[in-house]
Amino acid sequence: MIVRVPVVEKILSINDQLAEENRARIQSAGLFSINLMASPGAGKTSLIEKTLPRLKDKCRVAVIDGDIATSIDSDRAAAAGAQVSIQINTGGDCHLDANMLRGALDQTDLTQFDLLIVENVGNLVCPASFDLGVHKSILIASIPEGDDKPYKYPAMYRGVDVLVVNKIDLLPYVPFRMDYFEHGVQVLNPGVLTFPLSCRTEEGLDAWVDWLFQNAIHPTRNLELET
Amino acid sequence: MIVRVPVVEKILSINDQLAEENRARIQSAGLFSINLMASPGAGKTSLIEKTLPRLKDKCRVAVIDGDIATSIDSDRAAAAGAQVSIQINTGGDCHLDANMLRGALDQTDLTQFDLLIVENVGNLVCPASFDLGVHKSILIASIPEGDDKPYKYPAMYRGVDVLVVNKIDLLPYVPFRMDYFEHGVQVLNPGVLTFPLSCRTEEGLDAWVDWLFQNAIHPTRNLELET
Repeated sequence: MIVRVPVVEKILSINDQLAEENRARIQSAGLFSINLMASPGAGKTSLIEKTLPRLKDKCRVAVIDGDIATSIDSDRAAAAGAQVSIQINTGGDCHLDANMLRGALDQTDLTQFDLLIVENVGNLVCPASFDLGVHKSILIASIPEGDDKPYKYPAMYRGVDVLVVNKIDLLPYVPFRMDYFEHGVQVLNPGVLTFPLSCRTEEGLDAWVDWLFQNAIHPTRNLELET
Repeated sequence: MIVRVPVVEKILSINDQLAEENRARIQSAGLFSINLMASPGAGKTSLIEKTLPRLKDKCRVAVIDGDIATSIDSDRAAAAGAQVSIQINTGGDCHLDANMLRGALDQTDLTQFDLLIVENVGNLVCPASFDLGVHKSILIASIPEGDDKPYKYPAMYRGVDVLVVNKIDLLPYVPFRMDYFEHGVQVLNPGVLTFPLSCRTEEGLDAWVDWLFQNAIHPTRNLELET
């Protein structure tokens, strides 16, 4: 098993180089880009479905969906109004890496868009280790997942720029100590920008969409890219 | 990136050898053993917490918990009545492997127990690839995760012996097409033994615990081990 560590390091080092190339490419195309990460079923695709209609006629959005299998997510993104929706099937890999994203970026002309949404594979572990070269990393937590997730998946909570807390409409029906959850988040990622919302009832969605829109219409050439 | 495939194959081959050793060891100790897998927050630890008190005074249970970090899960298992509760912190790895389980088995005398519950890392992808050498693989699906998970994580759904569908108490509050979910399950794993239940309301728990108990008290030396 000892072989695993150096190999993973080598892969991560190659990944970092490719992420730099993606970063330069996205930067020069001038669009805003995000990497959506979450557990399976926390609501990545639902958030995209609820976000896109609100951005319609305001900005042009490309969606790149990563999944083990199927095109369910990219079909949903296209139906919700993505101008371009590209599916990456990882064929077993539990995360997107910068090379996969590069392949997807090759499929489209980035200068035609204001916003690029990358939906990662549903996983709270491995996606945290692979820089893709986008502006912001977004984690979607979900109320029914439970309040202990920051403690149990610290790398993911530590590494993100924005936290979306989805399914707040289920708070009355599940045991979830919000103060315990928030304490875990604050220890790992003090002051992280947080959007509590429900994709189902649409409560809280406006603040999230406004943030995204402000970034998308901002001249992103001057934004500092995440490293 | 091409290096990754042969290395993963080599690791899996080493893993399979170690799983065989675990299998022989568990077999000769005569206890029944399960590998609980699920997304983060689907209810692995909650299921253990609700199961152990029902088995108290009936059979002796050891729990081995795999997590990236913390001993939250093994503390909960111990509080719920596990005679032995061992925590494996993978330190970043997104799954348990047979070598980790071997290290945990070294910590205890297996002949003292009737049932071994291994709680894997919360992840619907990688744990499916690593045989641990236990009798049965159990997947816990969860209603709020959504009805499309069999389609999106086929390897996990295809490879398990038993499916627990948890959080059925949330069915009135979330969109979940049971027929669509069940169709996906049946295509991948026809006739898989399924226990719909709610750890919160305890509906459906008895059937699950009975199945576990019947296996635990059965002379498992004659049971065919999962391969």
